[in-house]
Amino acid sequence: IIIESTDHDKTLPELERKNVEDVIWAYRDRTVDLKRDSRFEYILIFKNQGRAAGASLTHSHSQLIALPIVPKAVKEEMAGAQHYYDNKERCIYCDIVRQEVEAVTRVITENEDFLVFAPFASRFPFETWIIPKKHDSAFEDIQKHEVTHLACCLKGILTRMNKVLNYAPYNYILHNSPLTTSSLSYYHWHIEIMPILTRVAGFEWGTGFYINPTPPEEAAKFLREAEI
Amino acid sequence: IIIESTDHDKTLPELERKNVEDVIWAYRDRTVDLKRDSRFEYILIFKNQGRAAGASLTHSHSQLIALPIVPKAVKEEMAGAQHYYDNKERCIYCDIVRQEVEAVTRVITENEDFLVFAPFASRFPFETWIIPKKHDSAFEDIQKHEVTHLACCLKGILTRMNKVLNYAPYNYILHNSPLTTSSLSYYHWHIEIMPILTRVAGFEWGTGFYINPTPPEEAAKFLREAEI
Repeated sequence: IIIESTDHDKTLPELERKNVEDVIWAYRDRTVDLKRDSRFEYILIFKNQGRAAGASLTHSHSQLIALPIVPKAVKEEMAGAQHYYDNKERCIYCDIVRQEVEAVTRVITENEDFLVFAPFASRFPFETWIIPKKHDSAFEDIQKHEVTHLACCLKGILTRMNKVLNYAPYNYILHNSPLTTSSLSYYHWHIEIMPILTRVAGFEWGTGFYINPTPPEEAAKFLREAEI
Repeated sequence: IIIESTDHDKTLPELERKNVEDVIWAYRDRTVDLKRDSRFEYILIFKNQGRAAGASLTHSHSQLIALPIVPKAVKEEMAGAQHYYDNKERCIYCDIVRQEVEAVTRVITENEDFLVFAPFASRFPFETWIIPKKHDSAFEDIQKHEVTHLACCLKGILTRMNKVLNYAPYNYILHNSPLTTSSLSYYHWHIEIMPILTRVAGFEWGTGFYINPTPPEEAAKFLREAEI
């Protein structure tokens, strides 16, 4: 458990940017430390905000779990990225960054190091990704200036979501490469934020497909234009 | 949409057994009819009961969706079953039926044609499966006497769940083979019932794994011993 603040009543986006940076440093430092233990194959970092998102404690916190196997969801994502790389000889995430910057309509905010956007085939209304512009498969290799820029993006987008979605509960997950891999040309770490606005029901469980009533272009417009 | 009753206030397990049979016949007859349309590859049949399970209408109903592709979740299930068959030359579901009947501890109820049990590696607390004892890959080939026995099981288990779980919302999904396959030796249709008692959160989204605080043996005991 990563306790994000000494203040019981403040949520992550209400903290000072410096404090958000400290949270990211905690993610990074714990990952680097646990990586030394050869029993672990994957570090999962995520945050559940609000009861409907699965949070059982109210004090603002994130979770970091070291796993002795590479999870199913991660294996699938890696396999998809590798498949694309095998066909195109380019990282799919680098291609997404390039296309989204060019298309503009799904971009929410950006800075020197990161792009914040609503992905083309969003599974959930207002699903948002934060992705480094520069190719890097391992989150733990993050540079100091990138930590500052990531903190800005994370604080900014969560503040925008709170404003537009009236403090809807959310999950975010840091998608990182397995510990057992070294620098990969086909994978690119990123953060996926999923506000809880719809219910996963029979259709989703039965198919593995998702019904999303909100086009990402519309979600991006609302989040981009929010006054914060 | 399959409207299960003319009575707005009755839920599926409150209907007469004859009426539940009619619902199953509707599932079966619509499947057989839609199977003639070669654009469709899969028929998904499911029920969302209660708002937290994704039901937007209160009048008791099920949903049947004809899809032009075989869904991801179905493909994975089929691949798993085929893999087992390739190794053992036996249907994994037939093996499960045999083992569960022998082990007893996870059995909730049974009759001549069907076994109702809490599966060994349940993903959710009180997850329950209804499975035909005789091997059959296609639900739509169900025999008339099996429809009667399935209606008994479905009405019975949902009544037990309502009693034990205080009318918790639930989803159930009929797992069937794709329309494009003929009789398969490695697949076995069945129904999976999932009461909504926990939240799917960051860990589940990030891994594709599930944390279940209730052992299936305990769930089965509660459901088996419920007075209905």
